This record gives sequence, C-alpha cells and structure tokens, in this order.
Amino acid sequence: MKKADKFVKNAAGRIVPTIINGKEVIPFQGINKYRPTHKGAAPRVPTCIDYPADGNKSVKSLKEALIKSGIKDGMTISTHHHYRNGDYISNLVFDIAAEMGIKNLRWVPSAAFPCHKPIIKHLESGVVHHIEGSLNGPLGDFCSHGKMAGLGYLRSHGGRYRAIADGELHIDIAVMCASAADMMGNANGVLGKHPFGPMAFTKADVKYADRTIVVTDSLIEFPCYPWEIMGNDVDFVVTVDEIGDPQKIVSGTTRITKSPDRLLIAEYIAKFVDAAGILQNGMNFQAGAGGTSLAFVHFIKEMMQERGIKARSMIGGSTKFLVDMMQEGLTDYIFDGQTFGLEAIDSLRDNPNHIPIGIFEIYDFHAKGNLARMMDVIVLGSTEVDVNFNANCVSHSDGRMLHGIGGFQNCMLAKCTIIAVPSFRDRIPVIKDEVTTLVAPGELVDVIVTERGICINPLRKDLIEATKNSGLPLRDINDLKKEVDEICGVPNRPKLSDEAVAVVEWIDGTILDTIRKVEA
Amino acid sequence: MKKADKFVKNAAGRIVPTIINGKEVIPFQGINKYRPTHKGAAPRVPTCIDYPADGNKSVKSLKEALIKSGIKDGMTISTHHHYRNGDYISNLVFDIAAEMGIKNLRWVPSAAFPCHKPIIKHLESGVVHHIEGSLNGPLGDFCSHGKMAGLGYLRSHGGRYRAIADGELHIDIAVMCASAADMMGNANGVLGKHPFGPMAFTKADVKYADRTIVVTDSLIEFPCYPWEIMGNDVDFVVTVDEIGDPQKIVSGTTRITKSPDRLLIAEYIAKFVDAAGILQNGMNFQAGAGGTSLAFVHFIKEMMQERGIKARSMIGGSTKFLVDMMQEGLTDYIFDGQTFGLEAIDSLRDNPNHIPIGIFEIYDFHAKGNLARMMDVIVLGSTEVDVNFNANCVSHSDGRMLHGIGGFQNCMLAKCTIIAVPSFRDRIPVIKDEVTTLVAPGELVDVIVTERGICINPLRKDLIEATKNSGLPLRDINDLKKEVDEICGVPNRPKLSDEAVAVVEWIDGTILDTIRKVEA
Repeated sequence: MKKADKFVKNAAGRIVPTIINGKEVIPFQGINKYRPTHKGAAPRVPTCIDYPADGNKSVKSLKEALIKSGIKDGMTISTHHHYRNGDYISNLVFDIAAEMGIKNLRWVPSAAFPCHKPIIKHLESGVVHHIEGSLNGPLGDFCSHGKMAGLGYLRSHGGRYRAIADGELHIDIAVMCASAADMMGNANGVLGKHPFGPMAFTKADVKYADRTIVVTDSLIEFPCYPWEIMGNDVDFVVTVDEIGDPQKIVSGTTRITKSPDRLLIAEYIAKFVDAAGILQNGMNFQAGAGGTSLAFVHFIKEMMQERGIKARSMIGGSTKFLVDMMQEGLTDYIFDGQTFGLEAIDSLRDNPNHIPIGIFEIYDFHAKGNLARMMDVIVLGSTEVDVNFNANCVSHSDGRMLHGIGGFQNCMLAKCTIIAVPSFRDRIPVIKDEVTTLVAPGELVDVIVTERGICINPLRKDLIEATKNSGLPLRDINDLKKEVDEICGVPNRPKLSDEAVAVVEWIDGTILDTIRKVEA
Repeated sequence: MKKADKFVKNAAGRIVPTIINGKEVIPFQGINKYRPTHKGAAPRVPTCIDYPADGNKSVKSLKEALIKSGIKDGMTISTHHHYRNGDYISNLVFDIAAEMGIKNLRWVPSAAFPCHKPIIKHLESGVVHHIEGSLNGPLGDFCSHGKMAGLGYLRSHGGRYRAIADGELHIDIAVMCASAADMMGNANGVLGKHPFGPMAFTKADVKYADRTIVVTDSLIEFPCYPWEIMGNDVDFVVTVDEIGDPQKIVSGTTRITKSPDRLLIAEYIAKFVDAAGILQNGMNFQAGAGGTSLAFVHFIKEMMQERGIKARSMIGGSTKFLVDMMQEGLTDYIFDGQTFGLEAIDSLRDNPNHIPIGIFEIYDFHAKGNLARMMDVIVLGSTEVDVNFNANCVSHSDGRMLHGIGGFQNCMLAKCTIIAVPSFRDRIPVIKDEVTTLVAPGELVDVIVTERGICINPLRKDLIEATKNSGLPLRDINDLKKEVDEICGVPNRPKLSDEAVAVVEWIDGTILDTIRKVEA
C-alpha cells in the first residue's frame, strides 16, 4: 500500500501526492505562480489571569510541564536545533511521552541530527507517528527505507516558519531549550553555562504554539535579557542538569577546506563574483559555514583587503572567520541565525553590530520581502545538480535522504545564487540529466561552479555578458556533463519503489517533489 | 438621539452601551472574570511575489503610498505618537484623504495630542468619522461636547495592542513615521536627523495591518539597523522633508516638580516604599516621567545611594534622570517604551542595557504574563480618585475628557500600584465619593498618597501591617476626604447629559465606563 494514494504531475513535471498525512495539499504551480488567498494563523488568545501573579512559571520537571501542557495522543510537538548534534532535549521529550504511553505524536523539529537516532525506537513503537522537518543521517535513512508510519515532510527553514505563521502547521506544544532563562520564561542562547548563540528557529514556535515550555540548565535572575524568547509567550519553565553537549554544536565543516579541488572551486567563485561586478563597496552577502563557502569568503576577504572594499552586511551561520572580518572593518554588520564556535557567540553577545536574526526576517516567503532577497550573492553546496540547473541537497544519488534541507531553497531568492559542487564524488558524477530529488528549480540557480569550470544559467544573460571576457573557464553545462560522464561513466539510476516516503515542499507551501522508498 | 442605543449596568455598577459604533461589545465583568475563548487576529498573508525583487519600496509621496494601499471610504488608519506634540504626519494623512474626497475614516492613533487639533475640521466634514485612541486637549474637548459622529473609544496602551492582536481592531493602513529608514522599509527611531527613541507603539500596527507605510525624513543605506520596524512587514516607504518637530517630544512634565506639596507627596511615597520592604536589592520598578514621579525616583535614588542598593530594572518613559542612575550603577537595565530627551535617546542607541520594549512585552493582558506585573512598584498620577480607591485619569471633575489614558490601566497589575495626587486642585477636591469616569477599579489601586497623608487600600492588609509602625501619616480615606471637603466645600457634580460620547475599555476588552456629553 502506498502511503499517499492520489498523485498528480506538478508544474515541475514531478509526480506528487495531493493528500499528505490526511491533509489536502497544493501541487507546485511554477516559480512565483502560487499566491496565498487565505488568512494567517490565528493563535490561541491567552490571558494573564491564567499565569502566576508573581510571574514564576517554574515547574519541577519536563514531565510535569508536558502534563500541564495537556500532552495527549496525536499532538504536534516542536523542538529547535541550535544545539545541533549535541541536543539532549528532543530525545527526552519522546522518552517521557513513551513512558506515559502516549502515541501518534507528530514531531516538527527545525532540524534533526544523528544524535536523534533514539527517536527511531519511538517511531517503531508508534509514540511518534512521523517527523516533519529537515531529516538527515539515521532518521533520513530510516524514512528512506519506508519505515516511518506517516510521510516525511521536508520544509526549508523559511518554509517551516511560513507554514506555522500561515496556519498550515499548528504546534500544540513547543519545547524550547535555552542556555539561560528566568522564572518568567524570558530566555536566550548567549548567557548561562553552555551558550549556543541566537534562537532564530524558535520564533514561529513560541508565537503560534498553544503551549511553550522553556527548558534551561541555567536559571538566572529576572529579567533574563536579551530575551530571544519573551516570558509573555511562555507557559512553563523547567530547569535540567544539562540541555546538551556544546562540543557537538560545531561540526567539522566549519573550517576552510584543504581539498585542492574545493579550493579551486572557491577561487573560481570569488573571481566570478568579482568579474560579474558584485564585489563592491556596500555589498551584502551570505557567507556559509561549510568548507567551500568559507574558502570562498577567504578569497573574497583577500580581494576586499587589497582593494579597500567594505561589505554592508554578511549573513551567517557565523564563525570566528566572519567575526574576524567584522573586527577588521570589512563589514558593518553580521546577521546571524546560527552560531558556530565560542568566538562567534562572544561576538554575538558583546558586539551590537553582530545581530541575531529570526527566520521571518531572513527567509519567510510569505512576507513583504526578506533578507535573502537582498543578498547580492549566496554560495551553497549541493548533492546533485542537473543540466537544467535544478538542484538537490537532501538525497544522495542512491535516493537515500541523508542531508538536511536547511535554508537551501530560501537562498534561491538572492540576486545571484551560486552552487559550488565537485564535478564528481567517489567517481559518481554530480551533474545529472535529472536530479533524483528536486529541491530547487533550475530557474533560480544562477551559476554552478565546479573544479572543471563555471556554468552560467542561460536565463542569466546579464551574468553571461558581464563575465564573457573574464578569462574564467566558462562552460556549457551539457559539455561539462559529457566530460565528467566520460571519466566516471554514467551511473545507473537509483532503484526506487513507487512508494512515497516523504515530500519536499516549495517555499510557497506547494508540493515540489516526492521522495520514494529505496529498494536496496 | 443617543449615539449608543442600548445600555446595561456592568459589574462595576456603571451604565455602558452594548453596541459601540455598530459592533457588539462585552460589558465589564469584574477583575479577572472575563476569559477570552476566541482565536486571535489572522492577518492577511502577503507574498514576496508582490514586492520588488530589489527590495526598493520607495514611492514618491504619502499620497501615492495611500493610493497604492487602496485607501477608501470607511477604512481604519493608524498612526503612532512617539513624536507626541511634534507629529506632522497624522494631520498630513487626513489632509490628503480630504483632498481625495474620502469619507468616514476611523483614526486609531496610539495617542493624540494638541498638535492634532486640525483633525477637528476633518471630523466636522466627515473625512474622519471617529477616533479610537487616547484623546486629550482639543480633540478630547471636541468629543466631550458630543461633536464627534461616532463614539470615542479609549483603550489603554496595552488594550490597544490587545485589541489589534485579538482581532477586534483591524487596521487597514498603518502610517508609521520613523526617524530613519531604508528603501526596504527597515526603520527605527534612533538614527536620522530627528531621532525620537523606541517604537513601542508601532508593533501591533505593523504586524497586523493590511498595509504598512513607513514615512521618514532620513532615508539611509540598507540595512537600517536596529530595525524596530522590519522591512518584511512594510509595503511602501515615503521620504518627506520633516516628520515632526523634535522640540515638542518633550513636554514640561519631565522635570522634577518644584511644588512643595508634590515634593512632600514624592517623599511620602519613597518612605512608604521603604517601610513596605519594597526598596531592596534587585527590585524592579516603573519610573514615570511626570514631575511627581521623577521626584519620587529622586528620593528613592538617594536612599539607594546611601544604602548601596541596586535595582535590577527600571521601566521608563526614560529621561536623563534614569540614564544617570544607570550610569551610576543603580540599575542593571532600563526598559524603555518612550524616550524623553536627547540624552535618553543617545543612551538607548549606544548602551546595550538600555533596551527598547514593545507594548506586548510590557502591557498586553492577553499574554502569558507581562512586565508590568513583574514590577515591585509603579507610581501614577490621576485626575480623581474616590473613597473606594477607584481612579480616573481621563476626565476632569467637570466631565471633560482632557487627558490621555496611556498605560494607566495596565500599570494596575504591578505588585504595588501607588497613585500620587494632591488632595485638591484649584480648590476642587481630588478625592470623590465616586469618580466621574471609572478608569481603574479600586480593587487594583493599592495606595493613594497625598500631601495630607497616605491611604492604603483595606484589601492590602500586608501593606497595612508592614507600615503600621513606620511613623508615616497613614489615613483612612474617608477621614481624609472629609478634611479636604471641609476646606474646599463639596463641589456640585458635573452637568452631564444622558448622551454617551465615548467609552473606556478595560484591559481585557470589556467595557468599563461611559463618558457622557458635557452640557455646559
């Protein structure tokens, strides 16, 4: 039996379900075609009457907070991922639910990590029905093999905010860990014993959930300021011994790559950005925390220093690298949705120009503009691209969903979106005839840069014109594919069943693609 | 003909209309009796598709912005009052509407000032049907004489936020002036040529209005940070020569009183706060900008200096006086909803512990707690009180509505609410048998302090017990009234018609009292 019974072909030519986990959905209609006509979420209206006059919302345990929040079968529970692979709290929530005999919960993390592997037993026992959120590693693999009761539902960071604010994704209980909080529920991620940075991913949860529980390991005196979470939005405050392992926030990807191929890619991107006229005083750009992105920023930085160029803003995932650039006067502002490394947290806490941002600000498509659209250039990694410039960042070429969707789709709105990929990995070509999973339609991918050359999307005649005499290795993507295929051979397409295991939502809430069960 | 046809007696014993300006309302049901069961406002869902890809939302004139926002008969237009008596923009909006032949607008300012007297001609001509918002001076007098087509509707600062967020007060077009903005609509009140401070009163407007127009006289480079208004929430940006006269932000009330009676009242309050055990390390209190409040803070400050006491937070209306206290180390934080004076604006911009707050945070009753409730003591002025500790801050004893309602009602939730009043003004006693207009029910007024003594609400047995041996002039309010009446004589009750001209909403959205037409 297929998990979704009715399928249609959408505007991207992809076959997608029309009903997902019992709810009717809209198939992708093309870029900038779907306009919302509904009203947004109308959250529950609380009243001060129901909250302690002295403001003290502390309860003794997370279990007590969940019980007082009315946890029951079928509810939707959210958590955030600022602790990344060091998070202790998400697992604890479902361990408690299991102990209480609760079933069929929907978990909507802002992202899941390998540390959440223990959730698999709760998926198997029926405590958790399915997960809606960026899946990677063990949970992605579990879902890819068709073992999850419901359909996985991948939303970009901005898409998750949008779905909650638009009223499509209602959260019953938001469980938000904070490195410091006061008894009223004011909370942040920069104070306390294990700070982790900004709390961008909590904003929609806290504002729209029926109940919000703050979990901290550092309860401090009122007022806990800055209040990335406002006590006015909080129902209960729980203090535990440890909310997570801060060592595991930083992954190995936040160092500049040492791979000669990747360094070459980064150098090509920097030179391309220069040739295209983007490298200018007052530029705004997103500087990712991955190895190739950091290398790109490194090359850009050298050019800026040489020519006395200053950026107006850089959007991070912030790192020591970005902080150093601000301290050297190479940018006025860092806008930071997620911090990697203690130096960046110190800067976020102490430098007023290092600014925590929320997902609404940077990525929400159902807003009156957003910051991603204001960026002159954004560089992204990808698992696959194809000759039509479509991009995939969630599944491997074997069809397994192993990588988070993150803000990938949202970044497509930048003025110049560049995808940095090696032309092959483990002798498997990265450029395909057609991506296994469509995550970003080719119409929005402006440039693909590999170590063998730079492919500009034919739609971007302006970029083609601007760089034609740059001396850079500009390539037709079909030629480049042919060259790589001649080296590696064209691999077989992955063996995938007809059965849907997950879907990919586009930033406007329509359904862009289906992820199918891996047969192997 | 009466403006409201059906009246009932509410739980405070006041006769109130059940339909106001065509809309059914709920009579006051008693303190902490009315619980909301509805959902909150579900705002229009916009999409990035409809906003310029380059982020530039500038239009040539306010008229163009209003036309593009779809201004038409019967709409609701909001403005904010951070420029106070120096605001140029509100009048301009209705001048444009008049020129366009538009009628029956509802104006919902966060407060109106004498500078808005020109709106009277638009009320007379039917461009503006009625005003919902704090009215004082000429507009209050106009309304008091029954000249406004609709009923005036007084909401506290917190009540206005609540009504918008709860979906009771829908704003079609929010016209928000900002001392600096960028072309995307990011805006604040601390940069630009005429800064005015935080933008607390814009938060609900911007978030829930269908259209938001930012009007500035200083258009700066993107990103305009801090963004008290986020460009993501803005439809159009208009640059004008001057948004207002910054000289008129500060009224004469932001200096310590020189009146011996008021200084005595302030000293009594300070001593009372000390005797009641409130003056302690880590205390949180609201420090108003009025003359008597400032004098109270002055006395408290001396005690704090003498005894080495440090507050945790002070909520302002901030002034140089509060800024000096923070610089002397007498408080960790200033939370600031409105700034009086350039020194305070400099501090707000440059000192990370001087923090702009929104009305949601400080005053919203339909939240999970708020900051006003966390305050150990708040001192307020009043036009009248009565022997049941009821308080009035909007009308004179002659019935004319001449003063803004402001945050008066919201402050009633503090742990100790003290009203500071002279026992008589112009030989008219301030303590009545019954207040002319009920703005705050006596149940919530803890202490009334006059130059002739201190009256503690009999409900606050704890305060009576704590201060009984303090040596302070503690008085029974009936005795004090008798003493004052013997000096001044009991004045005649004001001549008021049966006709309702305005209503006072309680913080929970129910109708607390009716203001009647002045016959004289």
